[in-house]
Amino acid sequence: MRALIGIGVIGYGYWGPNLVRNFAETKGAELRAVSDLRPERLAQARARHPQLRTFADAAELIADPAIDAVVIATPVGSHLELAERALAAGKHVLVEKPLAASADGARHLIDVAARRRLQLMVDHTFVYTSAVRRIRELVRDGSLGRIYYYDSVRVNLGLFQHDVSVLWDLAVHDLSILDYLVGERPQAVSATGVSHVPGQPENVAYLTLFFEAQLVAHVHVNWLAPVKIRRTLIGGSEKMIVYDDLEPSEKVKVYDKGVTLSPGPEGVYQMLVGYRTGDLWAPHLETSEALRVEAAEFVRAIETGAPGATDGAAGLRVVEILEAATRSMAERGRPVELR
Amino acid sequence: MRALIGIGVIGYGYWGPNLVRNFAETKGAELRAVSDLRPERLAQARARHPQLRTFADAAELIADPAIDAVVIATPVGSHLELAERALAAGKHVLVEKPLAASADGARHLIDVAARRRLQLMVDHTFVYTSAVRRIRELVRDGSLGRIYYYDSVRVNLGLFQHDVSVLWDLAVHDLSILDYLVGERPQAVSATGVSHVPGQPENVAYLTLFFEAQLVAHVHVNWLAPVKIRRTLIGGSEKMIVYDDLEPSEKVKVYDKGVTLSPGPEGVYQMLVGYRTGDLWAPHLETSEALRVEAAEFVRAIETGAPGATDGAAGLRVVEILEAATRSMAERGRPVELR
Amino acid sequence: MRALIGIGVIGYGYWGPNLVRNFAETKGAELRAVSDLRPERLAQARARHPQLRTFADAAELIADPAIDAVVIATPVGSHLELAERALAAGKHVLVEKPLAASADGARHLIDVAARRRLQLMVDHTFVYTSAVRRIRELVRDGSLGRIYYYDSVRVNLGLFQHDVSVLWDLAVHDLSILDYLVGERPQAVSATGVSHVPGQPENVAYLTLFFEAQLVAHVHVNWLAPVKIRRTLIGGSEKMIVYDDLEPSEKVKVYDKGVTLSPGPEGVYQMLVGYRTGDLWAPHLETSEALRVEAAEFVRAIETGAPGATDGAAGLRVVEILEAATRSMAERGRPVELR
Amino acid sequence: MRALIGIGVIGYGYWGPNLVRNFAETKGAELRAVSDLRPERLAQARARHPQLRTFADAAELIADPAIDAVVIATPVGSHLELAERALAAGKHVLVEKPLAASADGARHLIDVAARRRLQLMVDHTFVYTSAVRRIRELVRDGSLGRIYYYDSVRVNLGLFQHDVSVLWDLAVHDLSILDYLVGERPQAVSATGVSHVPGQPENVAYLTLFFEAQLVAHVHVNWLAPVKIRRTLIGGSEKMIVYDDLEPSEKVKVYDKGVTLSPGPEGVYQMLVGYRTGDLWAPHLETSEALRVEAAEFVRAIETGAPGATDGAAGLRVVEILEAATRSMAERGRPVELR
Repeated sequence: MRALIGIGVIGYGYWGPNLVRNFAETKGAELRAVSDLRPERLAQARARHPQLRTFADAAELIADPAIDAVVIATPVGSHLELAERALAAGKHVLVEKPLAASADGARHLIDVAARRRLQLMVDHTFVYTSAVRRIRELVRDGSLGRIYYYDSVRVNLGLFQHDVSVLWDLAVHDLSILDYLVGERPQAVSATGVSHVPGQPENVAYLTLFFEAQLVAHVHVNWLAPVKIRRTLIGGSEKMIVYDDLEPSEKVKVYDKGVTLSPGPEGVYQMLVGYRTGDLWAPHLETSEALRVEAAEFVRAIETGAPGATDGAAGLRVVEILEAATRSMAERGRPVELR
Repeated sequence: MRALIGIGVIGYGYWGPNLVRNFAETKGAELRAVSDLRPERLAQARARHPQLRTFADAAELIADPAIDAVVIATPVGSHLELAERALAAGKHVLVEKPLAASADGARHLIDVAARRRLQLMVDHTFVYTSAVRRIRELVRDGSLGRIYYYDSVRVNLGLFQHDVSVLWDLAVHDLSILDYLVGERPQAVSATGVSHVPGQPENVAYLTLFFEAQLVAHVHVNWLAPVKIRRTLIGGSEKMIVYDDLEPSEKVKVYDKGVTLSPGPEGVYQMLVGYRTGDLWAPHLETSEALRVEAAEFVRAIETGAPGATDGAAGLRVVEILEAATRSMAERGRPVELR
Repeated sequence: MRALIGIGVIGYGYWGPNLVRNFAETKGAELRAVSDLRPERLAQARARHPQLRTFADAAELIADPAIDAVVIATPVGSHLELAERALAAGKHVLVEKPLAASADGARHLIDVAARRRLQLMVDHTFVYTSAVRRIRELVRDGSLGRIYYYDSVRVNLGLFQHDVSVLWDLAVHDLSILDYLVGERPQAVSATGVSHVPGQPENVAYLTLFFEAQLVAHVHVNWLAPVKIRRTLIGGSEKMIVYDDLEPSEKVKVYDKGVTLSPGPEGVYQMLVGYRTGDLWAPHLETSEALRVEAAEFVRAIETGAPGATDGAAGLRVVEILEAATRSMAERGRPVELR
Repeated sequence: MRALIGIGVIGYGYWGPNLVRNFAETKGAELRAVSDLRPERLAQARARHPQLRTFADAAELIADPAIDAVVIATPVGSHLELAERALAAGKHVLVEKPLAASADGARHLIDVAARRRLQLMVDHTFVYTSAVRRIRELVRDGSLGRIYYYDSVRVNLGLFQHDVSVLWDLAVHDLSILDYLVGERPQAVSATGVSHVPGQPENVAYLTLFFEAQLVAHVHVNWLAPVKIRRTLIGGSEKMIVYDDLEPSEKVKVYDKGVTLSPGPEGVYQMLVGYRTGDLWAPHLETSEALRVEAAEFVRAIETGAPGATDGAAGLRVVEILEAATRSMAERGRPVELR
C-alpha cells in the first residue's frame, strides 16, 4: 500500500480555506498542516479541522518531515521565496496563480524543481473546470473549426489588491484558459489600463494578444464594475461559443452560426460574406468542483512523476504575458513582442 | 404661416427607409423626393410613399428646387462628394454617420456649410435616444460623481462592410455617445483589430481612449459574434450605470455602488479601499423613436439657424478619433495622440 | 390564370392593420377594402394603402361584389353577426380569435359555412408561428415522449377589455396552441379569477384543464402584471421544453431532463424516482411572420376547398373550453365537465 | 450571566445540517446533540462537529437533561409524535415546515405547548429572509397600496417526496410568506394537481386562495420542471413587485406601474382604465442567512417568553390551508371553504 502524501498549506486567507477543504478530501493525500501569520486565521482553521497542525511560521511547516508537498496561497510577492524554500527542502509545490511575480522568478522555480525532480504546479483553477475542459474538447476535435478570437469580460466590484494590478489578479484566469485551449503562443501584446485610486495599481485593464494567422484574444478586467460578469465569446469558422461562468446550468452554449465566404467576381481578395444561423446546443457539464480535480491532479503528478496540466512551464508562459502586458500598459498600449 | 421645408433623401438601402418614414411624419417638413441607383429600391419607395418623386441620379434630386434639405444615407465613401454638392446647391444637409471618410473631408464640409450659412448635421442616432439623454442628465447633474470609465460592448453577427472597418460602422456609435456625454476630448487612442475575411477590413476591433485625469473609455465591436450585445458600463465615483440597449424596458440601470477611499496609515498614497452597495434604480424612459427626435432637431436647426446637437463639429470630432484609431490599429495598438 | 381573391377587412383598430398589411402582400389575394366605424381609422388606412376602398358600414363592404373573402377584426361581441352576414352573402370568412362569444354561435357559423361550402377560419395566430410548429413536430415525432403537462404564463400590463375577461383575450392563445399540439380534448376545466376594476370582467385568471391519463394543462393570464411574460413549460417523459416567446432568438429550448422510474421493492406502486440531466438544444426557427403564413393558409383553403389548420371546428373547440371555464370561474374553481 | 440554551437537533438529512450549522453559531445557544436513525449520518455530523453528542434514538436526545430545546428536521409524518414527546419532556420545540401533517395535530401541539408554557415554533424559513421582510415593510407602510394579488411560481426538477404532495413541500413556503405579508386569512381555496408517478402523491399542483375583497393568491408548484424558477409577482394598487429569489443581488424589484381608474360616462360601474409606468427600484437587501435570523428568534422567544414570528399559530394557519387544498385537489378544484 502506497503511503499517503502529506500536504501542508501556507496561507489561510481568502483562497486557502478552499484548498484546505479540498485537499482534506483528496484520495492519496492527507492534509496535515496549515500556516498563517495571523493567529485568528489559524484558530479558525483549527476549529474547522481539529486534526491539523498549525504554524505561524511557514518555514516550520516547510521543515516538518510529515509534509511531502506544500501548497502556497499567499500574496503574489511571496510566491518565489516560499516556493523556492519548499523546493529546496525537497517538497513538491503547488502555487496559487500567478506562479511568480516575474518571469525570471518563474524560470528559477522551474529550474530548481527540475533539478530536484520535484513537481511544481500552479493553481490555474479554471483549467480544471468541466466547462473549460468541454470547450477544449470542442476546440481539439475541430468542432469550432479554425479559431478566430477569444474575447473575455471578467469584471465585478472588488477586491482591490495593493501589490498587483487587476491584470495579475483577473486576466491571469483568461491567460491560463487560453494557454490550455490553444496550442499556440501569442506573438505580441497590447494592453491599456487605468488606476482610479491614487497610488494604487490599475483597477481597470484591457489586453489584446496577437497570435499567428488571424487569431486574436482580448481580455477586459475590472475591479470597479457595478455588476459581476464572467463571459467569454469564442469565435470559430464553424461554430461559436458563449461561455458564461455565472450561469447556473448552461455555462457553455455552442452556436451553429457564422459567415460563409465565397470568392467574389474579382477573386479571393473580394470575398462575398454570407450569414449562417443554425441550432444552439449546450452540453451537459459535470458539476465536479475544479479544485477537487486539481488537487487530485497534483497528487497524481507526485505519484507518477508525470507533470500536471498546469505545470511550472504553463505558469511561466502566463507570467511572461503578464509581464509584457504590464510594460505595454505603462505605455498606453504600445505593442510588446513576446519573444 | 411658415413654408414647409422640402426634404429629399439620397439612398434607400438599409437605413434610408427609416429616415424616409420619420421625415414623412415630421412637423414643419415635407418629404418630397428619394433617389437611389437601384430601380427596385425606388419602386419600393414609391409603393410605400406614392406621393414621392424618385430619382436614379442624386444630382437631380439635389437640383430639384422643391428640395430645401438633403438627407444622405449612402455608403461612407460617397458622403463627402454628395454633401459637398448639396451644400454647393444651397441645401441644408444631414449625413448618415460617420460624417465623412476623413477628418479633412469633414472639415471641408464644415467650412462650406459655414460659408453658405447652411445647417450641416450628422446622424448620430443614439444621441437622440431617451436612454442616452437620461444618462447625460445623470452625468451633468453630478449624480454619477466623477466619471471613471465608459466601457461598451457592441457585437453581433453581420453586417460585414466592404469599404470600412467595424470601427467606422459600430464604434462610431459609442464615440458619438461619449462626445455627447463627456464635455472633454480624448488625448490619445490605442486600437487593435483583426480581419477574418481575406482582403476585407477588420471585423473585430477594440479601442481605448485616454482622457485627462483618470477617465478611460473602451469600445469592443465585432461583426462576427454569436449573440447580439449592446451593453455599456459607466463607472462614476458616486454611482455606476449599466446601459443595455436591448432591454425592452429598463435600458438604464443606476447602481448606488462603488468604493470608498480613505487615507491609509501611510497617507494618501496608500488609500484604503472600502466597498459600498446600495439600491438599484431604473428611471422610466420615454419611448420616443430617436430618428423622430433627430428629424425634428434638423428641422428646428434649419428654421432657427442654431446648430443641432450633432452638428458638423460633433461629426468631425468623431471622425478624428476614428482616423487616429485606424492608424493605431494598423500598428497593433501603438498609441496615437489626438491633437 | 386564376383570378385573385378579393379580400375585405372589417375593423381597423389594434389588430386590423396587421391583417391588412399581411393580406396586402399575400400571393393569390388582393386586398380591396377596409371598413371601420371611425372615420379617423379609415383615413389612416387610406394614408397607408391609397388603393383601398373604405366603408363606414361593414354591410357595404360585405355586399361589395369585388370582395370574395371577409376578415373580421372587431370586438368579440360582433363576431357572430358579422361572420353570419358575410357567409350569407357567399363570402369566405376569417375571424379574429375567439371565433364567437358562445359555443352556440360558433356552431351556427360552422353550419352556415358548411351548407354554403365556404371556408370559415379563425385567427389562432400562434398556430402559425415557427415556434409552435416546431414544438408540434417534437410532440408528434415522439421526441418529448408522453406529454405530462403544459403550463403557460401570459401576463403583462393592459389592455383591459370591457366585454370579455382576460380568459377570452389571453388564455385563448394557449387553448388554441394546446388544441394544435395535443390530439386530445380535455375532460374538465377548473378556473379561478378576480376583477380588480369595479364592474369589469376578470383581469387575472387561472385555468386548469384535465385530460385523460396524466396530462394536465394550466394557464395563467393577467392584464395587471408589472412585467411581460410569455413562457410555457411543456413536460414530457423523455424531454421537456421551455418556450419563451419574448426571447429574440432561442424561443424553444429542449431540455434532455426528467425522471427515471423504477419499480421499488414493493412493486410498481412504489416507484423509485431518479433524476436525469442531459444537454440543452434550441432548434433554429424560421423568422417568418405568423400572420403571413396564416393569410396564405386562408387563401390556399379558399382555392383548394380543404380546410385550414384553424378552421371553424378548431375555433369551436376553444370557445367550448372558454365557456366552461367562465362558468367554473364564477363558482371559484368548481370543475366543469366538457362534453 | 444567563445560562446557554442547550439545543438538540433530530434528523441530520437534507435540511438538518443547515440547522445544525446555524445553531452552532447562534448567540445564547449551545448546540449539544444530534440524533438520526442512520449511523452514517451521525458519523458525518461528528466529523464536522466533534463536540456533539449523537444519538440513534430521538427519545434519548429528548431525554438528555442538557437539552433545553429540540429542533425537529424529520419527514412530515413524524413531526407530531416527536414534537409532542419533546414538549411533554418540557423542551421548547422548533419544527421544520410544515408544523404537522394535519390541522388537528398542529392544534394539539399548540395546546400542549401553551399548557406547559413552552415555545413552539415552525421553520417557515422565508419569513426570515431580508427579501420577504423588506416586502412586508412595503406592504405595511402602504407603498404598494391595496394588495390585488400574490402570484408565485416555485418549480424545479426534484426532490420527489413519497409521503406528501408537492403542495406540502413547496407551496408551504408561499403560504407562510403570505401569512406573514397579509394580515388576513383566506376564505376559500381551489387546488388542482396531478401525479405523474404511479402510486405517488401529486408532483404538479396549482392553488388559488380567495380572500375578502379583491385579493387573490395563486401558487404554482412542480417537482418535474426543466428549469428552476422562484418568482413571485405581487400586484398592488400603487406599486407592483417582482420577487425573484434566484437573482443574486436584486431579488426584490418594485415597479411604479399600474392602472388608473376613473368613472366612465355611465358612472362607477363603467370605470375607464388608464395605464401608468414609472421608475423601477430595487432596494438593497442585507445578505444575512435566513436560518441564522430564525435561530436567533427561537432563542429570543425562549429567553423572553414572547412568541416568535412563526409560532405554532402561524404553523397551524398554514396547515389548515394545506389540508383544505388537498381536499380540493382530490376533487379537481372544487372550492373548499376555510372556516
